Amino acid sequence: MNRPVQNILITDVGPRDGLQNQAVPVGTDDKLRLIRMMAAAGVQSVEATSFVSPKAVPQMADADELLPRAQAALPGVRLSALVPNLRGLERARAAGAQEVAVVLSATETMNRKNINMGLQQAMEVSEQTLQAALAMGLRTRAYVAVAFACPFEGETPPAAVRQAAVRMLRAGAQEIVIADTIGSASPMQVGDLFDVLQADIPVHRMAAHFHDTRGMGVANAWAALQAGIRRFDASTGGIGGCPFAPGAAGNLATEDLVLMAERCGFSTGLDLMRLLEAVDFAQTLLERPLGGRAIGWLRGERDKGRLGSMFRGSSTQGQAA
Amino acid sequence: MNRPVQNILITDVGPRDGLQNQAVPVGTDDKLRLIRMMAAAGVQSVEATSFVSPKAVPQMADADELLPRAQAALPGVRLSALVPNLRGLERARAAGAQEVAVVLSATETMNRKNINMGLQQAMEVSEQTLQAALAMGLRTRAYVAVAFACPFEGETPPAAVRQAAVRMLRAGAQEIVIADTIGSASPMQVGDLFDVLQADIPVHRMAAHFHDTRGMGVANAWAALQAGIRRFDASTGGIGGCPFAPGAAGNLATEDLVLMAERCGFSTGLDLMRLLEAVDFAQTLLERPLGGRAIGWLRGERDKGRLGSMFRGSSTQGQAA
Repeated sequence: MNRPVQNILITDVGPRDGLQNQAVPVGTDDKLRLIRMMAAAGVQSVEATSFVSPKAVPQMADADELLPRAQAALPGVRLSALVPNLRGLERARAAGAQEVAVVLSATETMNRKNINMGLQQAMEVSEQTLQAALAMGLRTRAYVAVAFACPFEGETPPAAVRQAAVRMLRAGAQEIVIADTIGSASPMQVGDLFDVLQADIPVHRMAAHFHDTRGMGVANAWAALQAGIRRFDASTGGIGGCPFAPGAAGNLATEDLVLMAERCGFSTGLDLMRLLEAVDFAQTLLERPLGGRAIGWLRGERDKGRLGSMFRGSSTQGQAA
Repeated sequence: MNRPVQNILITDVGPRDGLQNQAVPVGTDDKLRLIRMMAAAGVQSVEATSFVSPKAVPQMADADELLPRAQAALPGVRLSALVPNLRGLERARAAGAQEVAVVLSATETMNRKNINMGLQQAMEVSEQTLQAALAMGLRTRAYVAVAFACPFEGETPPAAVRQAAVRMLRAGAQEIVIADTIGSASPMQVGDLFDVLQADIPVHRMAAHFHDTRGMGVANAWAALQAGIRRFDASTGGIGGCPFAPGAAGNLATEDLVLMAERCGFSTGLDLMRLLEAVDFAQTLLERPLGGRAIGWLRGERDKGRLGSMFRGSSTQGQAA
């Protein structure tokens, strides 16, 4: 059972999805240091900030300053910025953005509660924003939020996700991020949904974004890997949650995803030792314990000096019978 | 995508694997109360105790008293007792045991460190014990321990697990429990190993026993479900760990397994509300926080009065496109 090693690409969304609703304000210098530590750990793609209303999300009010400084400091890292509409896109361009992401919720009620628009209008805004971003020569991602369940409408019909995703693809989104915004997905649902979506969307154009609210984040990532998904959002230390979705809690922790994926023979390019340094730093910033389910074990291995060598021999599975 | 609901059987190993190496002594009355609370939550199978040397495992010294009292109190629950050898089996029979389990480690070094015997001798002892138990008319389980990795030898070759499992099957074990004793398995390994084992062992004769040390317990359970496994060990609150295996931590939490399995359309027969009561009680016994990865969310749902209705409509997947 020797399998070729496949690479997966992790976008660390900690600086945006992770920080956006944290109670403790984090300064621009500290955000930059956190992003630099992620890059030092091998993270190649970071969702750095969002150009939303500073009134709605005060933690992201420094986007105009943060993004150009991060880009100057880390020319080799893909830095993405969330933009809610054309006004946000203009701000992002003025800040020198090279990659932007739009967010479209798959349900009527979530759009109304989140951005005060219905689904159809939200689709049109996202399409306009994507098309304008492409005309500017930017890379683009489109989130389909509440793709598994909506806090207001319950389980999201796969047909609704498919419709939203296809609209975003046709509008030119280079990557469609299927997002379990409230952390309700089960691995069965993940497999089912990606099966449905692959009829219309090439698998290499999709990414998976999980929250670990119900302890299924790692299992859902495994289900997505099995469905052929190779791009994942995750958040160093598992910080995160959506401020507008009741019951939402931390993102899937980057370190949990790395550990699982590497143990399953995938290559993430990430260094867990350095990633733990970023988790430790994020803890001091947010003044509370962080980390995914494996954090106790990972720290124990680090203390024993074994973290550097842990993957040796584990990528090739099965000296089988 | 309507799938028939399938039942899974969970053996709660908390009273044995969970408690055996806990620092805080737990009295017989409290153990009985914990087992009764599990039964009240719908648990149909409990590993209640082990007939090992009281010197080696002081927490299990009350096995001779506990087992008959538990059987008298809970006639409808399968109560299992671990027996290391013929002497332990005799004690179990004297206590009225109806089901016993033997433990065979798949590697030479683990057997030497754990029971001071080589692999061949350990196999023979387990075979003798199983055969004697069958002659007494008892139900039998056989653990194959360190089935994914050994703390002393590294990754366990599937061929070694297969050999041990087949020996136990031929000796008459009615259920073969494939145990990730140190919580090192990845979902990829789980799928691979059960594929190998199914060549020789009917899938309905196997059970999966995971620890959540590295945050992959739920993902591994999903991988086992996909491989056709329908019997699982788990531990209320995730208490557990093997006292002889360095680095071992808590068992897969019963509540995490129930949540995932039910969300994936399987029926466990367990009531999460009552299971949380057992977790809360175990916390007071052990004087430390317990619970799996989903415990915060589960308690939040309970506080909102939503736990009773949470599975409604979730067993039938996909109002799909």
